[in-house]
Amino acid sequence: MSDFTHFNQQGRAHMVDISDKQETNRMAIARSSILMNKQVYEAIIGNAIKKGDVLAVAQVAGIMAAKKTPDFIPMCHPLPLTGVNISFQWDTSHDTYELIVDATVKTKGITGVEMEALTAVSAATLTVYDMCKAIDKGMTIGQTFLIEKQGGKSGDYYRKERRNDHGSK
Amino acid sequence: MSDFTHFNQQGRAHMVDISDKQETNRMAIARSSILMNKQVYEAIIGNAIKKGDVLAVAQVAGIMAAKKTPDFIPMCHPLPLTGVNISFQWDTSHDTYELIVDATVKTKGITGVEMEALTAVSAATLTVYDMCKAIDKGMTIGQTFLIEKQGGKSGDYYRKERRNDHGSK
Amino acid sequence: MSDFTHFNQQGRAHMVDISDKQETNRMAIARSSILMNKQVYEAIIGNAIKKGDVLAVAQVAGIMAAKKTPDFIPMCHPLPLTGVNISFQWDTSHDTYELIVDATVKTKGITGVEMEALTAVSAATLTVYDMCKAIDKGMTIGQTFLIEKQGGKSGDYYRKERRNDHGSK
Amino acid sequence: MSDFTHFNQQGRAHMVDISDKQETNRMAIARSSILMNKQVYEAIIGNAIKKGDVLAVAQVAGIMAAKKTPDFIPMCHPLPLTGVNISFQWDTSHDTYELIVDATVKTKGITGVEMEALTAVSAATLTVYDMCKAIDKGMTIGQTFLIEKQGGKSGDYYRKERRNDHGSK
Amino acid sequence: MSDFTHFNQQGRAHMVDISDKQETNRMAIARSSILMNKQVYEAIIGNAIKKGDVLAVAQVAGIMAAKKTPDFIPMCHPLPLTGVNISFQWDTSHDTYELIVDATVKTKGITGVEMEALTAVSAATLTVYDMCKAIDKGMTIGQTFLIEKQGGKSGDYYRKERRNDHGSK
Amino acid sequence: MSDFTHFNQQGRAHMVDISDKQETNRMAIARSSILMNKQVYEAIIGNAIKKGDVLAVAQVAGIMAAKKTPDFIPMCHPLPLTGVNISFQWDTSHDTYELIVDATVKTKGITGVEMEALTAVSAATLTVYDMCKAIDKGMTIGQTFLIEKQGGKSGDYYRKERRNDHGSK
Repeated sequence: MSDFTHFNQQGRAHMVDISDKQETNRMAIARSSILMNKQVYEAIIGNAIKKGDVLAVAQVAGIMAAKKTPDFIPMCHPLPLTGVNISFQWDTSHDTYELIVDATVKTKGITGVEMEALTAVSAATLTVYDMCKAIDKGMTIGQTFLIEKQGGKSGDYYRKERRNDHGSK
Repeated sequence: MSDFTHFNQQGRAHMVDISDKQETNRMAIARSSILMNKQVYEAIIGNAIKKGDVLAVAQVAGIMAAKKTPDFIPMCHPLPLTGVNISFQWDTSHDTYELIVDATVKTKGITGVEMEALTAVSAATLTVYDMCKAIDKGMTIGQTFLIEKQGGKSGDYYRKERRNDHGSK
Repeated sequence: MSDFTHFNQQGRAHMVDISDKQETNRMAIARSSILMNKQVYEAIIGNAIKKGDVLAVAQVAGIMAAKKTPDFIPMCHPLPLTGVNISFQWDTSHDTYELIVDATVKTKGITGVEMEALTAVSAATLTVYDMCKAIDKGMTIGQTFLIEKQGGKSGDYYRKERRNDHGSK
Repeated sequence: MSDFTHFNQQGRAHMVDISDKQETNRMAIARSSILMNKQVYEAIIGNAIKKGDVLAVAQVAGIMAAKKTPDFIPMCHPLPLTGVNISFQWDTSHDTYELIVDATVKTKGITGVEMEALTAVSAATLTVYDMCKAIDKGMTIGQTFLIEKQGGKSGDYYRKERRNDHGSK
Repeated sequence: MSDFTHFNQQGRAHMVDISDKQETNRMAIARSSILMNKQVYEAIIGNAIKKGDVLAVAQVAGIMAAKKTPDFIPMCHPLPLTGVNISFQWDTSHDTYELIVDATVKTKGITGVEMEALTAVSAATLTVYDMCKAIDKGMTIGQTFLIEKQGGKSGDYYRKERRNDHGSK
Repeated sequence: MSDFTHFNQQGRAHMVDISDKQETNRMAIARSSILMNKQVYEAIIGNAIKKGDVLAVAQVAGIMAAKKTPDFIPMCHPLPLTGVNISFQWDTSHDTYELIVDATVKTKGITGVEMEALTAVSAATLTVYDMCKAIDKGMTIGQTFLIEKQGGKSGDYYRKERRNDHGSK
């Protein structure tokens, strides 16, 4: 097996070795949202969507997606999640109808759960889109970002501003 | 088995019956993006991310996620996808660094592939976040929406404006 | 590669070849139930289960499980489901508290959806057990069976009696 | 983002936070069964089922399903299973042909494996149904329940009676 | 959204668009093998492997893997398999103990099932390795290749020689 | 429930109980390869494969497959992988074109990761086959085997010879 032409691995993907990291309690909170028109908003609130109770389904979708994160995000490490909570808030203050979705994910593990929280809120907002798209395909999933992260060697993280913070004016 | 107390099913979820719909060629295009700081941008461009070539991995993630959509979105029908394409564009025009991700999904089936396209772009941007979060946890996934949809009884759909269109000023 | 000792394949498993069957509309209805004590019943009815709205979650579980059937039942053919509906009934007529779960599954395919309907009701009752087991681990999942099946070469099937029919006195 | 209308989360689902529970050795045993007619019984015993050796496939199905439990039961925590065993018994004492399936599941984890054992026996009996349904669609999956559970803060559990215990006369 | 820096897509991955291909009956046969020492061979033949009946489990593994192929091979299209058969042969003619595994996979679809057949034999031989590795970790999975393929526009394919054909002397 | 005919469990499959094993750092390295003709080799090297950058996709496939191993290999225990790395080498020394794929997998767990490493290289080589089969269906996946294993009670393992070692002359 002489004369190998060693392939240049630079830049190729791998799942980073975290064998030496410590197992600690970790949590992360992520947020997404979905903007809709008044008709969709009223159908959700009035439980008049043909496919069923939108928020109940979105919540289950978010929790199940959190568990599937390492199957969804290629370089993400599998982690034994110890808790997932999805919550909803309506913001109707700007003549818009926005459903804000937060996910809190916890683990006792050797790496963080930021991706699980982000995946959970993404699945929840995508599920809202799916269940309401027969009324309006123009709904927009709003910005998706990490709000907070605790535990682990790199320390805690708290997002300074919650939205509209990268020039998306 | 007399004396049933019939549960009120109103509002409960189901996967809508589409048995009578016609099998036609369908396609959908969705878009998402991820906003990052200059340091992350240059690391991606320079292929200096520790986990590997970010866009190559994001692209595979998006394609595989499209195939997993019905496992991710509870009321979504399974469909035999006939094509998935993910493309990237950089927008660095506003002193920001934004990676725009488009997914085109096709099927020959009895319902549309909007959810597959939206799930694909979500997986791709989440993967970019995952691979770069060691540099900056403050990255924001931008708005996610359907650009275009063709085929099916409800007709074609073209989004009028591409972004910033629901008052997210 | 002479002198092969041919292994005796008799009795070994395979996924039966159905390439020559016709694609038709098919449906199946299956039933299961879960028997619980009064305390669990009242907690479900009163929406006082710590893990959440039991029937909403069970319904989503059943629908998602129907889609995963070929991944769960080894020799089962994959099928593009065109509709899944889960419904609940309470039978409190015999000093017992029994939640009856029915699943109706449809496809336009070349084999039937009996297993999808049976898997759906099993997932739904198991989910009820999971969400209520902190109150009582003694709950019993009742008999699970096919009620009806339509479409396909072997003809329609209607179960004569619904329960207690195989001598389980 | 003022003027939020806080959504009422009461009753909505979440995956309970178990971050503070202790990791201990845990086990659970569950039981299900399937009732069949003499023809199916003899075909299984005689290894004359077209799809193959029924019990061998059912056993693999049960073990693989135990590992997939958190993907099947929405609020169920993922756990690293350390052992799964499926065993079969025939009860032909009452002019009936009943295959009894027991699953023993073990983990070293922070919550119990009751759902994994119940899911394993459900998958095994459903697989028997699938492989034999060409002979008789009238087979009935019998009651499914937890027999025993050891480990964890809530203490051990042993079912008093094994079957026919909730008035299913 | 002017001033885009268009990313160079050349060379990036996509799932090829096959929307215009015709649905026809297709089949593929693939082969792999596993070489083992006499001790492992006799343990398999004598059904003395601690984990159970090796070939029965390998067969189920192969069939289930065939169904999961598009989740395993990133650019592979999902297909509704209509039949999967795994067969075993022993070659003990050269003072070696080699288990040869063939998989035949069928579909009525718009692309071929070569990958499904190759994935099936890979899963089967990997399962044999897993179940026997406590005896000998030195087992070698032999060459894996396509034997035959029928159906589709590109025509039929028959491998000329079955093994040892690429200079692996 | 008297008169049981106890089924003879001898030889039936189970997932071996490892509850009493110690959690330690473990690693395994496996190797596979794929032999191709000059045309395929040059297309890969020249990045001229229609489906995209072959090695980038194969690498992601291998990493994701490593995480899915317990879903693929029936009796395999689930393990929290802490690192996966896939590397490529070209051997063009014998008038052949062989791509050698190595996978290194790590865990901190109670059993080894040999199967994860073997599954990773299998998925990677199968992915190469998939992406290049439009050019030549005659590619052959070479021998697949464990190179090295560290950690665990059974001690370390190093393969003596790397290939051609079981008489496959």
